[in-house]
Amino acid sequence: MRQHDLGFLFHPNSIALVGITTAKTWHWTLTFLEGLLEIGFDRPLYLVNPKGGEREGHKIYASLKDVPGNVDYVIGLVNAQIAPKLVEECAEKGVRAIHFCTAGFSETGEEDRVKLESELVEVARRKGIRILGPNCMGIYCPKSRLSYSPAFPEESGPVGVISQSGGNSIYLVRQAALRGVRFSKVISYGNASDIDESDLLEYLANDADTKIIALYIEGIKDGRRFRAALEEATKEKTVILLKGGATQGGARAAAGHTAALSGSRTTWEALCKQLAIISVSSIEEMIDVLVTLLFLPLPAGRNVVLLGAGGGASVLIADEFESRGLRIPALPPQIIAQIREFTPIAGNILRNPVDYSQAMMNLEGVIKTFAILSGWEGADFIVTFIRTGQFTTYRTAEDHVNLLMSRFSVKQGQLPKPMAMVIEPSVMPTEAEAILAAIRGAIASELPVYYSFAAAANAINLVLSQAERQSSRL
Amino acid sequence: MRQHDLGFLFHPNSIALVGITTAKTWHWTLTFLEGLLEIGFDRPLYLVNPKGGEREGHKIYASLKDVPGNVDYVIGLVNAQIAPKLVEECAEKGVRAIHFCTAGFSETGEEDRVKLESELVEVARRKGIRILGPNCMGIYCPKSRLSYSPAFPEESGPVGVISQSGGNSIYLVRQAALRGVRFSKVISYGNASDIDESDLLEYLANDADTKIIALYIEGIKDGRRFRAALEEATKEKTVILLKGGATQGGARAAAGHTAALSGSRTTWEALCKQLAIISVSSIEEMIDVLVTLLFLPLPAGRNVVLLGAGGGASVLIADEFESRGLRIPALPPQIIAQIREFTPIAGNILRNPVDYSQAMMNLEGVIKTFAILSGWEGADFIVTFIRTGQFTTYRTAEDHVNLLMSRFSVKQGQLPKPMAMVIEPSVMPTEAEAILAAIRGAIASELPVYYSFAAAANAINLVLSQAERQSSRL
Repeated sequence: MRQHDLGFLFHPNSIALVGITTAKTWHWTLTFLEGLLEIGFDRPLYLVNPKGGEREGHKIYASLKDVPGNVDYVIGLVNAQIAPKLVEECAEKGVRAIHFCTAGFSETGEEDRVKLESELVEVARRKGIRILGPNCMGIYCPKSRLSYSPAFPEESGPVGVISQSGGNSIYLVRQAALRGVRFSKVISYGNASDIDESDLLEYLANDADTKIIALYIEGIKDGRRFRAALEEATKEKTVILLKGGATQGGARAAAGHTAALSGSRTTWEALCKQLAIISVSSIEEMIDVLVTLLFLPLPAGRNVVLLGAGGGASVLIADEFESRGLRIPALPPQIIAQIREFTPIAGNILRNPVDYSQAMMNLEGVIKTFAILSGWEGADFIVTFIRTGQFTTYRTAEDHVNLLMSRFSVKQGQLPKPMAMVIEPSVMPTEAEAILAAIRGAIASELPVYYSFAAAANAINLVLSQAERQSSRL
Repeated sequence: MRQHDLGFLFHPNSIALVGITTAKTWHWTLTFLEGLLEIGFDRPLYLVNPKGGEREGHKIYASLKDVPGNVDYVIGLVNAQIAPKLVEECAEKGVRAIHFCTAGFSETGEEDRVKLESELVEVARRKGIRILGPNCMGIYCPKSRLSYSPAFPEESGPVGVISQSGGNSIYLVRQAALRGVRFSKVISYGNASDIDESDLLEYLANDADTKIIALYIEGIKDGRRFRAALEEATKEKTVILLKGGATQGGARAAAGHTAALSGSRTTWEALCKQLAIISVSSIEEMIDVLVTLLFLPLPAGRNVVLLGAGGGASVLIADEFESRGLRIPALPPQIIAQIREFTPIAGNILRNPVDYSQAMMNLEGVIKTFAILSGWEGADFIVTFIRTGQFTTYRTAEDHVNLLMSRFSVKQGQLPKPMAMVIEPSVMPTEAEAILAAIRGAIASELPVYYSFAAAANAINLVLSQAERQSSRL
């Protein structure tokens, strides 16, 4: 009965949103309609609610059987109790797959709700319909114009995501998109009552549009099968894993969230090591790793030159990098001498990190310094730094950001060394504009952007370590 | 010759800014003038530069001896080479202390510059003048209207800071001020050629206005004396230490920054453990600890209830807390039943963390839930959560922040349990306004604000651990 090719999930010919709200006020389930409209879903889209009416120029049909055309994919927003009945109706309509956003099943931990979920799957299996969820956000696939949220990028990219949590997947897509990451397919699969993490991983492992696979997993249904899927996936692709529920409290939360049974942290870590999977412990860390994989050409080694502003900051960022296994080699006298030619001795620390605090007023000097450092063979890569938080006035902070960014008109590939940028966000709205522009400028130059030196050091170390393990594995 | 009472440094009767720029364009050394004017320094303030002229309504005197009144404190902005000559002139004018902002001394590592610094100190000692620096920002003391930067708070507070780095001290004051922290005295002391970290620590240990001492240290001149000062300081006050230059690269940067010789990380960590000093490894972590000490009444234990939005986020924040030694006890059935009375079963996870995603639309429900959880004896403290990053549109994010914040009109002291808030910043300027307002609202309610759950968990654990060590020490 099981279909191993899930391709049809990502290319529905028509969609019905069943149980769409008819309320006048905004309701979060409208995110599905808004998402599909915004991304330009260009096949038939039907709305269904017994109350009828109209929304966004679309007629609301009283029931699925009233829909005039064929429907092969349903997004179910109905109450949990009537979900099994919806499956029956879908079968009559010839629907191939239902994504149930609906919550209130096994994740509640209540017996009747656990039974309701089994019943749902039992009916679906009998009728030959695949279920995604329940209790999830479904599919974002920009290439086929599918989205479960507005404000998701229209363009495709090489990152495939399998996330047991809908909220975490939205957070990941939105925050990663701001850093330049684009996605092939993102699947939020919730309780995994039918289609589970192994099905999805097997699919993405063989998906030509997906080069990197990011996983947010709370629990697995079949350990042996999932492990085999990971082995297959890691042969050709880089896999990043965030295991939610790694602690006792987290595991209890996972059970309440998607009824997942978590494995021990040690088991997961050993697995990641063996298969050269990059293990992360937060969404932020996952995004840091993604931008590193996508935008930092793999450095030839662990030697980095840090260009920062501020002597004290330089000391701390050196500590951040070295304590994460990267090396900050001292600049040799001949390199220092070259920079000294046009740089005053006071207030400019020409070791490594290179603190050009005072030269900062002199853009020419910064550019020359950068060129000299780029040419130095002792460095494998360069990280530069924008921090507004230590400026004495917000006005100077904004000028500083604009000045520094004015030199990043070259693309990553044209630079002599891989380069990364740390751009620290600010909670001051007046600075936020300049900082967002700087982030966008850096992304346009195909540079990886990190929000802190600690984040940059951590992600670059993880990616270098993975490459080292991968090459020793081959 | 040495004066142990440094009190006069913080209460000068008049100040001369010697070497103030006469350029028309803004120069960073103007931060001293702007800082003093903005904070309302109300004693005589003189500007000195051989070029003469006027700035901000103040006459610029050609030399110190031309200044009509007495001068007991000088801020030296002159070139390093003429610094010793300035000391001579100060002696003739009866100056008691000079803060040399001037860089280009021993921190350059160049022999003639190291000698120049010795010469400076030698002249000063001979003339009975104390030197702060060189290569530092000097003193911020709101009570006596001293500041080295604009945009520093006018109000005083209980935190004293001794920072070898000027930039780090500005970053600390500005970022901590946004989170509600206020300061008694902040001293940036640079190369410590005369007044050093031990002098300053001995002073703050006995300063009635200072309850918490935060240290950013790159290297120490006299280990035995500094240790004794730490022992004295920790008797009555809480001490937080950030040791810059803990790695090889960091130590080299520290040498280049303030000519400091760093000790080994192990030595410092052992010392912190023994004296119940809170050891941190970044300015951000230092600020997190400060807001915890200032705004979170010490919880009776390590049991926390987390109120978050989003099931997947709940799993990860539970992991963040438990992996840092805090406990997330399961809610007992009777507490869950109380909340269930008015909360739909689907999409609201009532374990711990308590995810009220869907109830979020219903402010009454959120308030009732909060009241029930506050009354539960299984919890020692509560942490709530504002994350806009997973919202599907920026519009809903802003509404969400405003809705949540509308309930925080009560002060910390009126709440049944200590409470903390995690408010995640956003790089989106449109969200930044709402988030800054939320941060300010929380601060007005005397709540500690953290920018991430990881930061909150880390700081609360550090403070609880310090309290445990402190009580076992007494």
